[in-house]
Amino acid sequence: MQPPNHHRPLKQLLADYKHGYSLEQDFYKSPEVYRAEMQQIFLKHWVLAGHTSQLPNAGDYFLFEFDVESVIVVRTKDGSVKAHMNVCRHRGSRVCLEKQGTAQALVCPYHAWTYDLDGSLMGARQMADDFDKSVNGLHPVHLKMVGGLIFISLAENPLSLDTMFADLENVFDLFGFDNMKVAHHQSYAIDANWKLAVENYQECYHCAPSHPEFAKIHAMAGSPAKFQACKESYLASLDAAAASTKTKTRESNAYFDLAEAGDEGYQYGRNPLLQGALSGSHNQGPVAPLLGKLEGYDGGASEFMLGPMSYFLIYDDHMLAYRFTPTSIDTCKGDLYWFVRSDAVEGKDYDKEKLTWLWDVTIKADEEIIVNNQKGVNSHFYAPGRLSDMEYFEQHFLNWYLQAIGSYK
Amino acid sequence: MQPPNHHRPLKQLLADYKHGYSLEQDFYKSPEVYRAEMQQIFLKHWVLAGHTSQLPNAGDYFLFEFDVESVIVVRTKDGSVKAHMNVCRHRGSRVCLEKQGTAQALVCPYHAWTYDLDGSLMGARQMADDFDKSVNGLHPVHLKMVGGLIFISLAENPLSLDTMFADLENVFDLFGFDNMKVAHHQSYAIDANWKLAVENYQECYHCAPSHPEFAKIHAMAGSPAKFQACKESYLASLDAAAASTKTKTRESNAYFDLAEAGDEGYQYGRNPLLQGALSGSHNQGPVAPLLGKLEGYDGGASEFMLGPMSYFLIYDDHMLAYRFTPTSIDTCKGDLYWFVRSDAVEGKDYDKEKLTWLWDVTIKADEEIIVNNQKGVNSHFYAPGRLSDMEYFEQHFLNWYLQAIGSYK
Amino acid sequence: MQPPNHHRPLKQLLADYKHGYSLEQDFYKSPEVYRAEMQQIFLKHWVLAGHTSQLPNAGDYFLFEFDVESVIVVRTKDGSVKAHMNVCRHRGSRVCLEKQGTAQALVCPYHAWTYDLDGSLMGARQMADDFDKSVNGLHPVHLKMVGGLIFISLAENPLSLDTMFADLENVFDLFGFDNMKVAHHQSYAIDANWKLAVENYQECYHCAPSHPEFAKIHAMAGSPAKFQACKESYLASLDAAAASTKTKTRESNAYFDLAEAGDEGYQYGRNPLLQGALSGSHNQGPVAPLLGKLEGYDGGASEFMLGPMSYFLIYDDHMLAYRFTPTSIDTCKGDLYWFVRSDAVEGKDYDKEKLTWLWDVTIKADEEIIVNNQKGVNSHFYAPGRLSDMEYFEQHFLNWYLQAIGSYK
Repeated sequence: MQPPNHHRPLKQLLADYKHGYSLEQDFYKSPEVYRAEMQQIFLKHWVLAGHTSQLPNAGDYFLFEFDVESVIVVRTKDGSVKAHMNVCRHRGSRVCLEKQGTAQALVCPYHAWTYDLDGSLMGARQMADDFDKSVNGLHPVHLKMVGGLIFISLAENPLSLDTMFADLENVFDLFGFDNMKVAHHQSYAIDANWKLAVENYQECYHCAPSHPEFAKIHAMAGSPAKFQACKESYLASLDAAAASTKTKTRESNAYFDLAEAGDEGYQYGRNPLLQGALSGSHNQGPVAPLLGKLEGYDGGASEFMLGPMSYFLIYDDHMLAYRFTPTSIDTCKGDLYWFVRSDAVEGKDYDKEKLTWLWDVTIKADEEIIVNNQKGVNSHFYAPGRLSDMEYFEQHFLNWYLQAIGSYK
Repeated sequence: MQPPNHHRPLKQLLADYKHGYSLEQDFYKSPEVYRAEMQQIFLKHWVLAGHTSQLPNAGDYFLFEFDVESVIVVRTKDGSVKAHMNVCRHRGSRVCLEKQGTAQALVCPYHAWTYDLDGSLMGARQMADDFDKSVNGLHPVHLKMVGGLIFISLAENPLSLDTMFADLENVFDLFGFDNMKVAHHQSYAIDANWKLAVENYQECYHCAPSHPEFAKIHAMAGSPAKFQACKESYLASLDAAAASTKTKTRESNAYFDLAEAGDEGYQYGRNPLLQGALSGSHNQGPVAPLLGKLEGYDGGASEFMLGPMSYFLIYDDHMLAYRFTPTSIDTCKGDLYWFVRSDAVEGKDYDKEKLTWLWDVTIKADEEIIVNNQKGVNSHFYAPGRLSDMEYFEQHFLNWYLQAIGSYK
Repeated sequence: MQPPNHHRPLKQLLADYKHGYSLEQDFYKSPEVYRAEMQQIFLKHWVLAGHTSQLPNAGDYFLFEFDVESVIVVRTKDGSVKAHMNVCRHRGSRVCLEKQGTAQALVCPYHAWTYDLDGSLMGARQMADDFDKSVNGLHPVHLKMVGGLIFISLAENPLSLDTMFADLENVFDLFGFDNMKVAHHQSYAIDANWKLAVENYQECYHCAPSHPEFAKIHAMAGSPAKFQACKESYLASLDAAAASTKTKTRESNAYFDLAEAGDEGYQYGRNPLLQGALSGSHNQGPVAPLLGKLEGYDGGASEFMLGPMSYFLIYDDHMLAYRFTPTSIDTCKGDLYWFVRSDAVEGKDYDKEKLTWLWDVTIKADEEIIVNNQKGVNSHFYAPGRLSDMEYFEQHFLNWYLQAIGSYK
């Protein structure tokens, strides 16, 4: 039994972590740990903010929010996409109040300080003569496009994405990352520390007992031995001569603890669906037109991860994005985006209900799991437990996580 | 006026306590004090978890929950009752999610680790060869039956109940503790520190102004002088020759600060009802068949207390159990159980509404009192006040309490 | 970017404040700062509790509440108004539970300790012989009348109001401060630190963008140059010979950082309405009979402030009172009182809806502004911003505030 004491110092927690086991309670409850996570992870790493299809015209904006932060992502007059902190440089008011909208300029609702869409301060009434507008623009936020996906980093000097781009350009091209649109976006509030949500996403040990719908489609819900056999037979069945096949199936693992210093971690891989399944849907059949340059279904699905908060599952006809962000030390949210090719027409080319069925069901089951995990972790009797062979990827995540917050000062 | 400062250290609070007065504000607000209470009281002392009548068949279980803890109380296949922490030994999930139910085995909903009803780990898929199931059972919780009442202790080495059993066996036999059933159970949420609820229960100084219904039935709501006279005349009226009378009326006080070291505290006594009253009911008449081996009403009611959270009031025809547990430093709950003899039939032998009327009214009044007590105690202007002669038992509770948390390290 | 660290010590925050800028985040978030504010401001300075018109008869009382405090303001049998802490001297219960009511005596609902309306303890049952009732009255609270306005101070030795009275007696007389009644009172909950509400009240830089209704009536919503011109022409237009005009328009500024040591700060001034406006109403016309000894409308409105929480706006026909008090470190409330002369009859002399329209609209807009200000201030990217020329009075408030909490120990 853990004594009902103060939280132990981060240093001691890090020193005491036992490889092969889950984390101690304090990692989920200590304010010091949460501050370290803010500094080392959420104010530093790249995260999916949204997609250009949400910003068709100049002046269109949406907010990306987590914990106490709010970021304005906006299409400027020259057509580019920019991100700014949603904090007025005068007395700090939120500048944009609506989750999304269209504006000629970004006008603070408090004292009407007026910012150009590019973030620069254009007007501020009644300021002293020595007030310098040029250094009072909205705090800029780093932004990179991955096809139409908008990634941002709140770091002063963000991690490099160059290795990732060089490695995966062909993949993005094949799946038409610059030719998609958001068909649906939904937020799921989860009463648990954000790590319990990410850890849940990192392992399929729970898939068979918890996700019967998923387990009917994805081979990875089976035992490692069965999955390995299935994967080998899947790869053997593909036409090795086709260039697109090579692009699709090349594994790329520079994720989490495997990334080079200074680089953002990422991962790409392709895994088989179960016999006969073509996509992640109720009848295992297609639910939207083929993505990008694909010419047919091959019974697999790709995974892509970029940074510690943004995960993608690419079926041949649609793509899922998952993002997990904290709303407080004890609560987080999962955001799901469903993407289809940009020229697909709702009601004709795809039915939103059929498109979203599998993962709406799955994340709702996960939400319940995660919340009950948190409840048990809160007990004085919780102690780190041994991880199974099917949680090797969670172990990678934990390795990386401990290393990431280990450099907190 | 108390300066609006940090909480004072527990040591200083203990040193400064003034006998004959209520506690300082910090005892109700300081996280250090609450941690000390967890360690020295709630994770240590015996508490009523429920009753065997709630578990008629093998596999039946219910949860007993307080603060961050959840305990599974379950009837195993061999018919015995066991208690386990509701925390999976893998990654800590709650194992049982429903307040009560029936199960063949205790299966964690996350990764399907499967525990026998006796708590031992039976199945865990895909674990490494060196994983030892035999040391990964659910954390066991000590459990003792007092008749059909299930008491548990979360301590590693619980306090002894031997003295209590030796002393009160005849009482339990007389009132048929092993021949009762729960006729009704209700939880009352109280927005106040748990001590304000227990302190309220420890004194009848408030009964006359606050509980007119109770005060019409129980002599103890009167002044000490009147009560003493009433008690003497009640005892004189009883047939001293009858063995059952001796059993019923023998006072036994090893409670709180009076218990021997290593023993759990307890108390038993019998007090008169007011002239003509036979039970705690609207018309002061019986509301259920006589309990145990009783052969008639004698115009008294017994009190039994075991550990600092569990209190019993035994009328001749039904028994009340009260349990007060914290849900956080600032909130608690009172649980009330109404017991009747096990062969009594609802609708025929007793009417639930009539049975529960008095104490439902009374605890709802107490809830309001306690919440308003907390509001005042929160003020910078609150200072410990002098206790009255009718709060001598609260003083015993405070003596014990200060001693109990005094050994916190 | 502010590192996601612990709050910095108050001493360092004070040393680092940069004149001409808004406050750092920690001033709004640090518990140490909040404790300093409690001690140096809310448990010390004078604040408007209410008005005698709320207490027509002996035994009438109302509660004034903020943060964890509750004060009983009551008319005693001799007709005077007294204030006591709403904390029983026995075990601390709230004594009065209703926001307002009428009572013969103040009887604690817990154990029936009975206090006279003047606060002295009259009855306490079953206390030991050496219990001294005379030192167990309700904690007294200092109280001063400003006309019919009831001000209280929770300080042991309150700041002096003598200078203020000597200075402004004629003003109170002119506007009939002892001849008003509360026509309406409303509380507005605001999810923000109290200072953001007070700072909002201290400047009219936001009036033009945020309060179109107010800006149509009050000259001060315009630029400083326009306002100055308007004020000069307003003063020139008045009949300088009239004594009442002199009384009305004499500026008096001993507010905030300008008050003498030992004196409570206060301020009085008169400002022009825009051309043709006579009062703060939808059509800029009168909404109630002229106040006090006024004989006509002159197109101006007076402001009066007393202590850091209580603000008054005096139109010629009605008066507004604004009071901002914390309910926690993160939340506060604004209380608005609308006063008319005491013999005005609702429905005949004034219409409540017309009377309250302007400031109900205005404070609701302010509430939204203030909450969005807090959200932005919470960001790691918030940094103190430069104040405008129109926020000179906020600068006075900040100067005073830093000095006030600077003496916290």
